[in-house]
Parts: sequence; C-alpha cells; structure tokens
Amino acid sequence: MAENAVPGKVAAIRSHGAEIRFRPTMSAAYEELERFRSDTGAVLVSPFADPEIIAGQGTVGLEILEDAPEVEQIVVAIGGGGLIAGIATAVKALKPDVRIVGVEPTGAPTVYASLRAGSPQRLAEVTTIADGLAAPFTAPLPLSIIQEQVDDVVLVSDDEIKAALVAILDTSKLLVEPAGAAATAALMTNKAAVPIGAQTVVVLSGGNVGLSTVKQML
Amino acid sequence: MAENAVPGKVAAIRSHGAEIRFRPTMSAAYEELERFRSDTGAVLVSPFADPEIIAGQGTVGLEILEDAPEVEQIVVAIGGGGLIAGIATAVKALKPDVRIVGVEPTGAPTVYASLRAGSPQRLAEVTTIADGLAAPFTAPLPLSIIQEQVDDVVLVSDDEIKAALVAILDTSKLLVEPAGAAATAALMTNKAAVPIGAQTVVVLSGGNVGLSTVKQML
Repeated sequence: MAENAVPGKVAAIRSHGAEIRFRPTMSAAYEELERFRSDTGAVLVSPFADPEIIAGQGTVGLEILEDAPEVEQIVVAIGGGGLIAGIATAVKALKPDVRIVGVEPTGAPTVYASLRAGSPQRLAEVTTIADGLAAPFTAPLPLSIIQEQVDDVVLVSDDEIKAALVAILDTSKLLVEPAGAAATAALMTNKAAVPIGAQTVVVLSGGNVGLSTVKQML
Repeated sequence: MAENAVPGKVAAIRSHGAEIRFRPTMSAAYEELERFRSDTGAVLVSPFADPEIIAGQGTVGLEILEDAPEVEQIVVAIGGGGLIAGIATAVKALKPDVRIVGVEPTGAPTVYASLRAGSPQRLAEVTTIADGLAAPFTAPLPLSIIQEQVDDVVLVSDDEIKAALVAILDTSKLLVEPAGAAATAALMTNKAAVPIGAQTVVVLSGGNVGLSTVKQML
C-alpha cells in the first residue's frame, strides 16, 4: 500500500490478517507488487483486470436494472475500470439504450488517457483525494470493454469531489469516501452531460474515509 | 417553533408552505400552539397523542418483524412517546416476548418522569442537543401504552448522544440527527441492559442535523 493510505482502510485490511508492505507512492507499491509476484509465484487478484471480478462487479448493473427499470443513464467512477466494465457489460446486454458515463479524478486520469491513446497507459504518478480511484494503470480487458460499451468518460477535480461528498452527506445522509463521491461530482458540475429529466442512477461506491478528513472538508 | 430550532428543519417546513411563528423555548412554543388552537378552532395533528399517528408509527414495528424476524429486543428513542407506543403495540401483539426499551435524553425526561409519577407530567423546561426528543410533555394515550407495553425507559446524556452520532457515522456511514442517535447511545453505554448476544434492533429516526453541528461534534 502507499504510505499515505487511509488509516481506516489499512486497519480494516490488517484486521483480516493481511501483512502489509508500505511504499512511498501507489506507483511504487504496484512495482513492489509485481516484483513480489515474479519472485514468489504469488497470484494477484486484480481489482479490475480479472474477468471474474468484472463479472461480479457487473451484478451491480443487474441490481440497478432491478431497482430502477426505467433508468436511462448510469454514472460510475473509474479507478482501474473493473466496476464500470462489469456494469456496462451487464446493462448494455439487457438494455442497450442506457447511457453509461465514467468519471475519473483529474489527478488520476488513467482510463481517460488510455482511451485517447488507444491502449492501456501507465501514469508516472497519480495525485487525488480519491485514493479509491488512484490506480496508476488499467488493463487490456476493462479498457476494451470501456471502449466498446461506455458512452463517455469525464474528469472531476478534487475540489469538485469534496463538494459532492459534503452534498451527499447533507442531502442523502450517507457518508461516502471521495472515490464514492466522484460520480456525483460529475453530475453536480454538469460534466456528465445528463439530458434534462433523464432517469439517472449514480453508483456511490466506497465508505473508507477517516472522520478527521470529513471534518476538514466540512 | 423554538427560536433555536435547527435551521435545516425550519427551512424544510417553510418549503412545504408553512407559516412559522417562533417563541423563545419549546415550552413557550407549545403554549402559543394551545392559545392559537383555542382562539381559532384549528386542529392539532399531534406527533404523538393521536391514535392514528401512533398506528402509523406502529408500521415501523411491522417492518422490523419483517426484516428481522429473530429480533429479541428493540431500542427506540422517546420524545412525546408516539413512535415507541406504536412500535410496542404492533410488536407485542405479534411477538409478546420481544423486549422494548425506550430512551430519553437526561435533559428531556418527559416520559421517564411521567412513568414515575403515574400520570403525564409537563416539564418546566427541556434542554437537550436532541431537539427531536424535546417534547416538554407526553399525553395520556402514549403514556398508557408505554406503561403497559414498554419494558424499560432509560436516560442518556448529550455527550453520550454525541458519541453515538459520531460512531454511527463512522461505522454505519449514516448521518442521523442527535434524536436519531439516542437509542444507540443507550446501547453503547450499556444502559439498555441488553442480554449478551440478544438480537437487537435500534431505530435511527431523524436526519435533520446541520453540517456545522456535525463538524463541531467531529
């Protein structure tokens, strides 16, 4: 993990019995991960590159269609791209007209840059308050699904994410982490380009945020 | 309303088209209410004294039994006593062994004092951070139901309520108002006297809390 990882997330992972190795940055942590994997033959369970993980994340799309059959647009934050790839696959298969919009932080535009380059890009560094979206690279599988199935990918700033987090707390009474507020930030700033009156579902994914961070934002 | 009513609550009531008259305290506001009613013949829809309101609040009890059929204890905050009267009536009719515990703030022990006196008491003044529980009196109907159906009524301090509010935000990711945290405060301080391992449901009722208040508590 990166040394600046959210303490609550570190504690939760430790409580499940994991041994954690820290590196100064997310990129350095990923390098250490690759090194460990090639040294030991350990198996990586990727949060976004694995087809079965993506399929599992696709069940979020099935739940959306079940709960909101009239949905016309779904807005989802992107880290490595697994969640949106799963949701887009499931939803487009059942309701191809539903618009799917991805949202990345301006400081970690991994998929945004990869879409423009036409291949998975690795960012030298990522800097965003939304640590849950700070994957410095994506993978061929989620990227190809996003290329085919996602209608748009937009960027939001850290300040926009903070404003969305506070608005969600104030109006929905839900505490999400910055990653969980990014999709709402795209709506609040009109970046998701919602047609007026369209039935829109926003996925709020992630609640690992320290209360001292929340206090600072308030 | 009392002059120190939560601004968000005042704004929400105004947005529904109400004309609001302020008085310095809750007790003074209730006195004005009685005066207005006798002057004009207006009909009061009591939040706790009316049998149909209590019956409606009883549906919370039905939902609890539906969602948690193994429940052994339900902990509910008390303002005027309507919510707990409804829940206790519904739950005891269907599952008489479920224990029902009421919780009041130490600064507004209206039902607690009325139970001890054996009749509805009117408190000269109520002072609690849990404005949603600050009814300065109860009524014969909810009190008689509480006397018959509620197993215990306990008191929690404002500091205990604040700690519960913060703990609910941290662990359940839900923002409740102080009134909505009082029942949890009774559990956290072992005042609700839960048998260890008992399946317990806590009702978190109310989300009208300003973010500046939340910031202060954090």
